[in-house]
Amino acid sequence: MPRKKPDIDRVFHALGDPTRRAIMERLSQGPISVSRLAEPLAITLAAVVQHLQVLEESGLVQTEKVGRVRTCHIEPAGLSVAAQWIADRRTMWERRLDRLGDLLAEPDEK
Amino acid sequence: MPRKKPDIDRVFHALGDPTRRAIMERLSQGPISVSRLAEPLAITLAAVVQHLQVLEESGLVQTEKVGRVRTCHIEPAGLSVAAQWIADRRTMWERRLDRLGDLLAEPDEK
Repeated sequence: MPRKKPDIDRVFHALGDPTRRAIMERLSQGPISVSRLAEPLAITLAAVVQHLQVLEESGLVQTEKVGRVRTCHIEPAGLSVAAQWIADRRTMWERRLDRLGDLLAEPDEK
Repeated sequence: MPRKKPDIDRVFHALGDPTRRAIMERLSQGPISVSRLAEPLAITLAAVVQHLQVLEESGLVQTEKVGRVRTCHIEPAGLSVAAQWIADRRTMWERRLDRLGDLLAEPDEK
C-alpha cells in the first residue's frame, strides 16, 4: 500500500481502540512481521490485519511485503500530527491562564 | 456532572470527530456558554450538547450550570493523558532509531 498522508480524524479514531494502541506500543519497539505481531494478541490474525489496515489508512503505520512476509513499522508522521494538534490546544489554554494570572497580579487601581 | 477521570479510549475517540475538535479549539480560547459555543457551528444546539457530552464523558471538557446558563471549559487532564501516551510511543521509537544510528556508526570489525 502506498504511504498514506496522516489524516487527523482517522489518526484519533485509530488510537481510540485498545488493541490498536497495543499494536502501536509493540511497533514502537521496532518493526515486526504481521504474524509475530499477532502472537501475543488474543485475537485472530484476520482481526490483526483489519486493525493494521485502519492504522495504515490513518497514516500511523506502514507495511511492506518482502517475499511472503509482511512487515509493519510505525510511521512517525501520524503520531506527529496528533501530538501537534494537542500541543497547540494546550499552548493556547496555558497562554490564557498566564494572561489571567497577570491580570490577577496587577495592583488594584480602585 | 461530576468531573470525569480521563479515559484514554474515550479521549482519542472524542478527538476523532472534526466538530468535537472545533469545540476544543474554541474552548482552548477560554470558557464559554453552550449557546454561544453553538452559534458559529452549523449544527443544532441539541447536536452541540451531544458532542459536549462525549467530550465531558471522556474527561476533556467540564461543564457547569450557574443559574440558567451552562458554561463549558477545557479539562486539561484529558489532553495530558493523550499527549503523554503519544510522547511515550515517540520516545521509544526515537530511542530505537538512536541505537540503530549508534550501531551503524560503530567501526566495522570485520
